[in-house]
Amino acid sequence: MRMEFYFVTSNKNKLREAQKILNRRLKAINLEIPEMQAVDVVDVVQDKAKRAYEKVKKPLIVEDTGLYIKAWRGFPGALIKWLLWHRGNDGICKMLENEADKSAYAQAAICLYDGKRYKNFIGRVDGSIVLRPRGKSDFGWDPIFKPNGHNKTFAEMSGKEKDSISHRDRAFRKLKKYLDANRS
Amino acid sequence: MRMEFYFVTSNKNKLREAQKILNRRLKAINLEIPEMQAVDVVDVVQDKAKRAYEKVKKPLIVEDTGLYIKAWRGFPGALIKWLLWHRGNDGICKMLENEADKSAYAQAAICLYDGKRYKNFIGRVDGSIVLRPRGKSDFGWDPIFKPNGHNKTFAEMSGKEKDSISHRDRAFRKLKKYLDANRS
Repeated sequence: MRMEFYFVTSNKNKLREAQKILNRRLKAINLEIPEMQAVDVVDVVQDKAKRAYEKVKKPLIVEDTGLYIKAWRGFPGALIKWLLWHRGNDGICKMLENEADKSAYAQAAICLYDGKRYKNFIGRVDGSIVLRPRGKSDFGWDPIFKPNGHNKTFAEMSGKEKDSISHRDRAFRKLKKYLDANRS
Repeated sequence: MRMEFYFVTSNKNKLREAQKILNRRLKAINLEIPEMQAVDVVDVVQDKAKRAYEKVKKPLIVEDTGLYIKAWRGFPGALIKWLLWHRGNDGICKMLENEADKSAYAQAAICLYDGKRYKNFIGRVDGSIVLRPRGKSDFGWDPIFKPNGHNKTFAEMSGKEKDSISHRDRAFRKLKKYLDANRS
């Protein structure tokens, strides 16, 4: 029998994306749980999964994404949302202006937790931070991240193009593989 | 009668400092509580006080400190510890190199929580980030913060000199005033 689980998210696009990749319906649940301070997204999703489980008492998944900048020794990682809210994409480029090495990676982590065991799925895309934001600016740090082997930033790609290589999709595909293998 | 409360900290220096200013003995308690993601230290201390209270069920105080950089629109605030761990003081100076405005403020927040009511005490010191770290490098971002009206960074000051103007001391002195006024 298939395991039923919640997806702890308030984001309808993420829900749609997850359902498509996992090829199943998920129950979305929006819980007001503060995320823990950490650069490592795995720490963030595990802690959130634990706290979410305390509330819903059902198997669930939690997802989070981080941007790891090499010249900053991995900072900000999971804290990127705060840096982005305060500085914007332009500001991040400026802070990195004096660094020759612009390499970075995007990492998504999904934690599946059933009250007993944490199972984490990581999707990673290597790339670099561009000199100035490029493309549409409606989604996070997409305008400043260019995956390796591509000339476009995530924001310059079509939705389909981005989905085919994105860190989040990679993490969800690993989760799918796990669920398939465990017939759950 | 005097209210008894815990100080949630693992830091013996902070405990000593607090006891001196408050002129009373405090029970220190070290709880493994993840801090919430936020730039505002008040958010961090309130959330931590709430979670600590769930564990100890006694009145308690929680303290946290942030560094707010104007050119970065307040970032990193309470997240300074992560930026410091990853980049170090040198790195922070470098990230700020292209900004003409180096002004910043240090802010400490103490939350007193008795299970019913949060009472916050804020201590703030205005200053700026220096071009290069100066002074002994054994305590956080002291080598890069210079309070206004002084030529020395916190790290170049004697302990006594720093205590007389520090954000944390200011917050504790406000707490003392409150406790005295409420005879608690």
